[in-house]
Amino acid sequence: MVQVVLVSHGPLAEALVSSAKMILRCDMEGVHAVCLTDDGIETFEKRIKAIAEQIQKEEIILLADIKGGSPFNASLSVFRNCKFKVVTGMNLSVVIEALMNRECLSLNEIADTAMKNGKESIEKISLDSLLGK
Amino acid sequence: MVQVVLVSHGPLAEALVSSAKMILRCDMEGVHAVCLTDDGIETFEKRIKAIAEQIQKEEIILLADIKGGSPFNASLSVFRNCKFKVVTGMNLSVVIEALMNRECLSLNEIADTAMKNGKESIEKISLDSLLGK
Repeated sequence: MVQVVLVSHGPLAEALVSSAKMILRCDMEGVHAVCLTDDGIETFEKRIKAIAEQIQKEEIILLADIKGGSPFNASLSVFRNCKFKVVTGMNLSVVIEALMNRECLSLNEIADTAMKNGKESIEKISLDSLLGK
Repeated sequence: MVQVVLVSHGPLAEALVSSAKMILRCDMEGVHAVCLTDDGIETFEKRIKAIAEQIQKEEIILLADIKGGSPFNASLSVFRNCKFKVVTGMNLSVVIEALMNRECLSLNEIADTAMKNGKESIEKISLDSLLGK
């Protein structure tokens, strides 16, 4: 099964796993969240390296909060020799799509579908239509 | 100052505030996170109503995790008579844009900019170019 690794500034990565679990009510085996805390980037690097050692022979979807941020940069460096795809700007739809598809789609398709659904989920809602005004 | 209200399934809304604070190092006055927990939707509704009572005369940007979810639906109902704009699919870029612009742009412009930057932040990264392969 494709491994899903979420990385973020602050508690976002862990919160996304909790929120996705509330919606999907699914098993979170093979899902790993690593958060950059006030302990600093060295602690983050230790944690992401420990996960990489466990899963380096698997296929991996890496989801990051922001392209070019410290969690993203450190993770790319750690996973550079693994078989992985990266999607940045993770939101709840990105995470849910990745989790729902990781047993039925290819690594590339999982990343494409997560990206597409994530982008589509970001909408400015027209209140007039929703509230029947 | 425009008020920013984040709503989510699980701890996502509060985590996004913490993560944004880590990056922006800014004051979070006027920022409100309400999370749907295992306590149920009634508890969520009480909390969002308490916030609405405080800020109902202000301009409001409502950021939600998923369009059509319980937190989104309950919040729309509570804020329906307020001056507000909604952006769904919130991610860290959406939140950061909203926080950075809330003192200098109009309510509509804040929502447009948050949506645009949020969508653009969701990318499938080409590893070959990043890793110099």
